[in-house]
Amino acid sequence: MHFTLAFIGFGTVGQGLAEILVEKKEMLAKKYDFHYTVVAISDIVKGSVYERDGLDLKKILELVKKGKKIDEYPTGKKGLDSLATIKETNADTIIEITYTDIKTGEPATTHIKTALNAGKHVVSTNKGPVVREVNTLLDLAKKKKVQYGFEGVVLAGTPAINLATFTLAGNTIKGFKGILNGTTNYILTRMGEGMSYEDALKKAQELGYAEADPTADVKGFDALGKVVILTNVVLGKNITVNDVKRKGITEITQRDVEEAASEGKRWKLIGSAEVQANGAVKAKVWPEKVPLSDPLAGVSGATNALTYYTDELGPVTIVGPGAGRRVTGFALLIDLLNLNRAL
Amino acid sequence: MHFTLAFIGFGTVGQGLAEILVEKKEMLAKKYDFHYTVVAISDIVKGSVYERDGLDLKKILELVKKGKKIDEYPTGKKGLDSLATIKETNADTIIEITYTDIKTGEPATTHIKTALNAGKHVVSTNKGPVVREVNTLLDLAKKKKVQYGFEGVVLAGTPAINLATFTLAGNTIKGFKGILNGTTNYILTRMGEGMSYEDALKKAQELGYAEADPTADVKGFDALGKVVILTNVVLGKNITVNDVKRKGITEITQRDVEEAASEGKRWKLIGSAEVQANGAVKAKVWPEKVPLSDPLAGVSGATNALTYYTDELGPVTIVGPGAGRRVTGFALLIDLLNLNRAL
Repeated sequence: MHFTLAFIGFGTVGQGLAEILVEKKEMLAKKYDFHYTVVAISDIVKGSVYERDGLDLKKILELVKKGKKIDEYPTGKKGLDSLATIKETNADTIIEITYTDIKTGEPATTHIKTALNAGKHVVSTNKGPVVREVNTLLDLAKKKKVQYGFEGVVLAGTPAINLATFTLAGNTIKGFKGILNGTTNYILTRMGEGMSYEDALKKAQELGYAEADPTADVKGFDALGKVVILTNVVLGKNITVNDVKRKGITEITQRDVEEAASEGKRWKLIGSAEVQANGAVKAKVWPEKVPLSDPLAGVSGATNALTYYTDELGPVTIVGPGAGRRVTGFALLIDLLNLNRAL
Repeated sequence: MHFTLAFIGFGTVGQGLAEILVEKKEMLAKKYDFHYTVVAISDIVKGSVYERDGLDLKKILELVKKGKKIDEYPTGKKGLDSLATIKETNADTIIEITYTDIKTGEPATTHIKTALNAGKHVVSTNKGPVVREVNTLLDLAKKKKVQYGFEGVVLAGTPAINLATFTLAGNTIKGFKGILNGTTNYILTRMGEGMSYEDALKKAQELGYAEADPTADVKGFDALGKVVILTNVVLGKNITVNDVKRKGITEITQRDVEEAASEGKRWKLIGSAEVQANGAVKAKVWPEKVPLSDPLAGVSGATNALTYYTDELGPVTIVGPGAGRRVTGFALLIDLLNLNRAL
């Protein structure tokens, strides 16, 4: 199957995907019969270009790596903004990777709705729209007979969502429990090795795991968004961020960590949800002392992990990377290959 | 999609699948548009029955649970043997679940070849044919435009093979490392708690994890078969059982276990393979001292786990059950749902 692609946003994740598409072009064609042409890229900072018959993605990557604008691409139409790129180009599939705003979900939600309404498929790593209104967006996609893929919003390219919806098909999933934030797991791992919270946070910031303002990670807001997503997508519910109890890791002391170790346990920031007998769901993000016999206890550093509780298999856990430009870019390829398989 | 199914073999795994099919009939129809009629069952001990318009699977399960023969089913044609059931019934999909013989692969290989040659799909949990000639069988299926699914041969219903071939699509998998045998992992776990090898083995036998003759498990032969399968199916090679180095767990002493613990490590029987720079593959089953930072270290009891080394995501690990009648029966449902999706 052949796809014409447009990138809305061309930051690190978009460049990660672009590199994979360039490097694996032949393999993707040969192994999966997946063929593509990138016809447009529109980025709010780097500018935009549209070439009906296809852009040379390698050239675009070279421009961007030199710090130049996409507008400097030698041919094509320049100046189309994101909405015009979605509506007025011949792209059949939109790659939505603008910045995430969990509070408003914008501008991504408008991009995605515009694309779906125009009968175009969407693949996106943007958490905002999924946290805020995944069910609305999936219904719209269904109505318009197109697909909306968002594998990258939880555990990045580690296929957490596809594992649940596809690979574990036939099971009823009654709950989940996971290490959904790499930054806090990195900090807790270093604390387990004797470092103070402050030093571990500083180290995480040096390594680029934590932002200058680490609130979203250490207070559990990032993990909370993922709990909402998994609850709605995998457990089939319709909760909002206000339905999730939350506590971060900022109150965990070196003494707590030592105490846990003496009990044969490890502190982890756990995002979880469980369907109750009455169908309601109990969802939270909370630090927990996990026994070493739990597969989550051995997940160290910035690695993520997620356990699904299934009716047929019992607990099934996946462990893998939860961040990284190329790893998150790869999540978009998973969605594109799903699309290719479905069509 | 509607399938007409024939069971070749109706032991514990077949009954496990039959229970799932009965209990989940409505859900499978509603959620996956998967519909089925079981038209034939042929078991070398329990007898056989063929009813063109469909058998009442619930009634068959009741008969078998009472220790009665399938022949006692009130209607239908009796006495068809396995090959006649494959060739002469209107089943479009054959569920091959006779006993496993790794050395000869028979009678399962003949059953599977007969079915594929007759243009029928096959789903099977039988390791013998996969260990011995998976590539031949997959080629035959391709030629006949039918499918051959065998998710259950590694990690039972934990979707190890689908994870690699479907969910991780787009990656190049360069190697794997796993706890592929639950019996030995159970024994090593109990030894880690202070039990002797002999007592742990006895306990495993009491629980039904280990056979009266535990050789296949404790000497690593069972894990070796799975290494051959994963190497050929996931890494795309063509090795035989003779290409895998093997050592079991019988020489591990209580002292070895204590020494590992003092180093912050745990003994695991690891099945692994790695593609070398020249394309050759290095495969083995060997006891290893695994550091606690490795996700495999936390996998305790009879649970299995498998880490794939991918080019895009690095290591990705799945942890889940590796045995059990219903868990293995469920593996066949995974294959049936794949078939349903593909057609």
